[in-house]
Amino acid sequence: MPTGMPPVGEGPHAVGVDIGGTKVAAGVVDASGHVLRRTRRDTPHRSRSPRVVEDTIVSAVEELLAGTPAGEVVAVGVGAAGFVSADRATVVFAPHLSWRGEPLREALGGRLPVPVFVDNDANAAAWAEYRYGAGHGESHVVLVNLGTGIGGGIVLDGRVVRGRYGIAGEFGHMQVVPDGIRCECGNRGCWEQYASGNALVREARALMTADSPVATDLLERVGGRPEDLTGPVVTEAAREGDALARELLAEVGRWLGVGIANLAAALDPGTFVVGGGVSAAGDLLLAPARESFRRHLTGRGYRPEARIVAAELGNEAGLVGAADLARLAAAGLAWADAGDLPSGGVPHDGTPGDLTRLSDG
Amino acid sequence: MPTGMPPVGEGPHAVGVDIGGTKVAAGVVDASGHVLRRTRRDTPHRSRSPRVVEDTIVSAVEELLAGTPAGEVVAVGVGAAGFVSADRATVVFAPHLSWRGEPLREALGGRLPVPVFVDNDANAAAWAEYRYGAGHGESHVVLVNLGTGIGGGIVLDGRVVRGRYGIAGEFGHMQVVPDGIRCECGNRGCWEQYASGNALVREARALMTADSPVATDLLERVGGRPEDLTGPVVTEAAREGDALARELLAEVGRWLGVGIANLAAALDPGTFVVGGGVSAAGDLLLAPARESFRRHLTGRGYRPEARIVAAELGNEAGLVGAADLARLAAAGLAWADAGDLPSGGVPHDGTPGDLTRLSDG
Amino acid sequence: MPTGMPPVGEGPHAVGVDIGGTKVAAGVVDASGHVLRRTRRDTPHRSRSPRVVEDTIVSAVEELLAGTPAGEVVAVGVGAAGFVSADRATVVFAPHLSWRGEPLREALGGRLPVPVFVDNDANAAAWAEYRYGAGHGESHVVLVNLGTGIGGGIVLDGRVVRGRYGIAGEFGHMQVVPDGIRCECGNRGCWEQYASGNALVREARALMTADSPVATDLLERVGGRPEDLTGPVVTEAAREGDALARELLAEVGRWLGVGIANLAAALDPGTFVVGGGVSAAGDLLLAPARESFRRHLTGRGYRPEARIVAAELGNEAGLVGAADLARLAAAGLAWADAGDLPSGGVPHDGTPGDLTRLSDG
Amino acid sequence: MPTGMPPVGEGPHAVGVDIGGTKVAAGVVDASGHVLRRTRRDTPHRSRSPRVVEDTIVSAVEELLAGTPAGEVVAVGVGAAGFVSADRATVVFAPHLSWRGEPLREALGGRLPVPVFVDNDANAAAWAEYRYGAGHGESHVVLVNLGTGIGGGIVLDGRVVRGRYGIAGEFGHMQVVPDGIRCECGNRGCWEQYASGNALVREARALMTADSPVATDLLERVGGRPEDLTGPVVTEAAREGDALARELLAEVGRWLGVGIANLAAALDPGTFVVGGGVSAAGDLLLAPARESFRRHLTGRGYRPEARIVAAELGNEAGLVGAADLARLAAAGLAWADAGDLPSGGVPHDGTPGDLTRLSDG
Repeated sequence: MPTGMPPVGEGPHAVGVDIGGTKVAAGVVDASGHVLRRTRRDTPHRSRSPRVVEDTIVSAVEELLAGTPAGEVVAVGVGAAGFVSADRATVVFAPHLSWRGEPLREALGGRLPVPVFVDNDANAAAWAEYRYGAGHGESHVVLVNLGTGIGGGIVLDGRVVRGRYGIAGEFGHMQVVPDGIRCECGNRGCWEQYASGNALVREARALMTADSPVATDLLERVGGRPEDLTGPVVTEAAREGDALARELLAEVGRWLGVGIANLAAALDPGTFVVGGGVSAAGDLLLAPARESFRRHLTGRGYRPEARIVAAELGNEAGLVGAADLARLAAAGLAWADAGDLPSGGVPHDGTPGDLTRLSDG
Repeated sequence: MPTGMPPVGEGPHAVGVDIGGTKVAAGVVDASGHVLRRTRRDTPHRSRSPRVVEDTIVSAVEELLAGTPAGEVVAVGVGAAGFVSADRATVVFAPHLSWRGEPLREALGGRLPVPVFVDNDANAAAWAEYRYGAGHGESHVVLVNLGTGIGGGIVLDGRVVRGRYGIAGEFGHMQVVPDGIRCECGNRGCWEQYASGNALVREARALMTADSPVATDLLERVGGRPEDLTGPVVTEAAREGDALARELLAEVGRWLGVGIANLAAALDPGTFVVGGGVSAAGDLLLAPARESFRRHLTGRGYRPEARIVAAELGNEAGLVGAADLARLAAAGLAWADAGDLPSGGVPHDGTPGDLTRLSDG
Repeated sequence: MPTGMPPVGEGPHAVGVDIGGTKVAAGVVDASGHVLRRTRRDTPHRSRSPRVVEDTIVSAVEELLAGTPAGEVVAVGVGAAGFVSADRATVVFAPHLSWRGEPLREALGGRLPVPVFVDNDANAAAWAEYRYGAGHGESHVVLVNLGTGIGGGIVLDGRVVRGRYGIAGEFGHMQVVPDGIRCECGNRGCWEQYASGNALVREARALMTADSPVATDLLERVGGRPEDLTGPVVTEAAREGDALARELLAEVGRWLGVGIANLAAALDPGTFVVGGGVSAAGDLLLAPARESFRRHLTGRGYRPEARIVAAELGNEAGLVGAADLARLAAAGLAWADAGDLPSGGVPHDGTPGDLTRLSDG
Repeated sequence: MPTGMPPVGEGPHAVGVDIGGTKVAAGVVDASGHVLRRTRRDTPHRSRSPRVVEDTIVSAVEELLAGTPAGEVVAVGVGAAGFVSADRATVVFAPHLSWRGEPLREALGGRLPVPVFVDNDANAAAWAEYRYGAGHGESHVVLVNLGTGIGGGIVLDGRVVRGRYGIAGEFGHMQVVPDGIRCECGNRGCWEQYASGNALVREARALMTADSPVATDLLERVGGRPEDLTGPVVTEAAREGDALARELLAEVGRWLGVGIANLAAALDPGTFVVGGGVSAAGDLLLAPARESFRRHLTGRGYRPEARIVAAELGNEAGLVGAADLARLAAAGLAWADAGDLPSGGVPHDGTPGDLTRLSDG
């Protein structure tokens, strides 16, 4: 881990907000990445205006601030699924919310007493794992979050890689199979069609619907209704030894390894953190992923190989990361990729940088 | 382009060395990226010891220094094909030179009067295009160099991305076709098997050898000897209207677009610079690449799209970039990714950073 | 065409019945393949019992027989989508009718005054094209019918190839893309997911739904409702010059050529007849198919190449073929593959065989 | 098995000749498929004229006839790798012999006292397995011979399927991977690049050359020389438990199953016979093939499934089959596909046909 990081526990707090498809989760996060207080709201339906979502966020944050000593919270970080502009002010496109070009930072900024920063939810989760989770102690971390699709976040040399327009990390739509399975994005053969929670469930249902004898156990687990199958049911069945569930997880793992090998070729991180619901399957997923990764990694045997590990922060990673990135940004540590640790803070020689200012916050 | 860059022409010079498979090219490069003086040596055969290659480099650099006022050259940058460690000291693996774990920086350091920095040749070329070429004025640039294989270099937010172990940018070995064409790296379906100079020539030869009537014109151009076919011959034929040559370039272009769309999904740069011999075909290659890129880019219509442009610095890009990176590193501007521009030098607010020190060199 | 065939117009008539998803079409077919009289019924819903479908068939046939001189019709041939047993008696599996193991020949046999033979609808259509349509004069004909999926029929050396269990010709489910698009059959990458009317419409709709500017013209043709798009609309647009419609048809054509090259490698027919709704596009479909076929055909340049031609009998091919096969079978010409022309009838030396018996019928 | 076959042991003998890449093998074959006497010659180099190969064949046959009672041998059947015309007279293209359009039947016919018939070697082998080997008792048999490439033969309803031009059964060049591994035939992704003896050895060598630790055992078996590896070495290692060898055989088996599922969709045979050197691995190859077959077979669960069995006749299958096909043809049993059993001989009602004439030979 880069030295110069603020010691655990030092520095002010921030509020993190995670806007999901069904829930808006918010929490006060301290400088150790702990969530001190939480609250939740239902996510307004996508047909509602952006103003309604803003109201929901403001309401949740105000509730948290009301229970917090004045000055303790210095910033609000909002994580949202979708494209967020590189300056962390605008939600360019958020499919679940029907937002296009929504100036969220400005809109919220006038209604809350502390600065607001917006980030892609997977970027925020990657940052949280880098700072407090499975990537702690690493300098180059890539998060691959397996959920409905694949969420991706990149931290290289202690900085979030957001890209020229803020849209880096959309790994799920890298094509792994030419002319492959159609993706909601309109393309074919996207990685997330082969490695995600949705892919896992889709494959299982296909076998269940086809009355395949190998699916008998899974079918019984959902009372004969394939449409009731969920990822956790598959994972549980796999843990209890069901052969099909294990094979399906292994298949997702193999494709996970293929895509990770591609990312390793391009980015050469030290650690891949695998998160999302499917990662609860642990080595039932990760062992096949590691094997596939090694088979596909170019230059294997002539280079150090990245580790592939399970995420540690669960589904609060986005909230924690959004808060932490906002906290650092608000502390005047904005740098090229706004909100990341400044170079002064992570010198290779170990000299503490000016992140010590954080404790003065 | 990030502001705060040293004005063109200000600052000391550096020597760049490009170790190729057949030639060692060296030159004195000024702060405008101009090559003031050049020299060349044959590359020692790969069976020779690393010491012989070092002798060759030292000899070339000494020749250049002998014709240069004392103090004018402040550093030597060496670009080499292969894996170079992240601290820019060691060549981890260089297939053309049979090097493994060669401490080149230390070995040369004791024999030359100025500091030496080593870099992957494609990283160096990417930096040169970013600073002085087709990526000038951009902050996020990805170089895709089509030669024997694919060489890749990444500059994000004004910094070279080298990865945890120095091996980032090996795009050529991202898999684009599962179970596809076998690659020298041992894997299958690597991108460079579909988009490179070698792929272009291999496909053309296959048709020539099969006595395909569509290959008649190409066959005549090489006197009936498929083994004499080269990329430039195909490009020339395409320019003169040969249908097969155009189709072959378009096919390489289409695969180029596929891979670039994958990189855009992961990295979201503003500009892709396409270099290498094949890029001489210009729009015969790039127009199909752009079309394929658009078809495969996720989120098209909801995001700004990266430009795809031809490289401008030709085959001196590696030499120029290696010199420039070394010059900046030697000027005390070493930062997390040693040798890149410091954050102080590229503030977003436009304030000039301490790169002005360069002119004091 | 094998000699020894009964001269056009000689021999008794037969009734052909084509059970489609929405209509049951029946007709009296003469020995020239002409449909002399027709009638139609709605296909009973798949939830109804097989008996209801039998009633429908019997009703239609009785209507036709009532208007026909006694003895003129010697057999009834029923063509059904689905798996039909090799002895032409049982419908093993018919998805549109929810039939499994239905003994149709026996069930109808007791209710109609002439023998009944059942066949797969694509087999029947292939036979009709071989005898009276685009395959007339050829000895080895393969039918590829592009509709909802791909229906296939094989006539080799004047005999229908039904396979050991009656299920030959299911070309649509040959895999052309590993890990490709999911098929209703449960597999992935089936040919009919790339080359069929459904594939054509699916691709067009995907672009329309994604608001692709290239789809503007198509979208206007269906009043802005992608769900209203049909294959004929795409074909009409292509004929009128719409670039997207042409490209979509060409894409289907390219995949058609790939699969046909595979079939040619295995079966080496002299002619491929392409039928189904999409074939109405003519050379907009077939020209790309032929080009793709040639590129993928093994041994090209060292072998005669099969022709690829459009079907000629339209959607009555199944009815005509079912009638003709039944007529021949009823005339005592049952032979290895029951109902096909006997070897005596198609000697290579041109001697007329005992098919002359047909005129005695 | 179709009834009406001549009882085992009844009928005259024939000579079979198998022209291989290095050896010409010939033998006298009786009506039970037994090889009574054998002889061999070196195959003349491909640079020699066809006349030299003819001399070799004539010499071998004359040697065999010299030791045989007059009249006992009624025909000579020649099996050759390559394209043989449908009338069994001409070798259209034989890569190993550099033959194009060689009228072998006519050329030999004038020099030998009995009729000569030529056939593709895999067709002959398929026939032998159908009559005397693993396909005995079946009516619809497909042979998949895994050697250098894939040789294929089809027997449907007791007849060899030769195709319109004699070139049916070239399964090895059906494309299973778009843009896949380049084949000697000029195409990409041909089945035989994934399922053949060559594919097995190529994959093993790739791992050995890459110094993969998993290849240590195999490497030791060939004294550290990957170029000395052969299929039998891999099979032996697999039998002795080497994990890599087993995995490589399983991989070939999986691709074997994919292609067999495609052939089953098109042809619906009752039995697939797998021959060639690799088939010596038995269930180490066939168990993965069967599993893959089942996963890829369309309509599984709704149809009878073909068996996949190992060939029984070894490398004499071609010789035996060529002799048997010639014997039947010479006995006046020529039929649509010359040389196959006539319809009279295989009536479905079990009545013996005129094959009894054979015993009058």
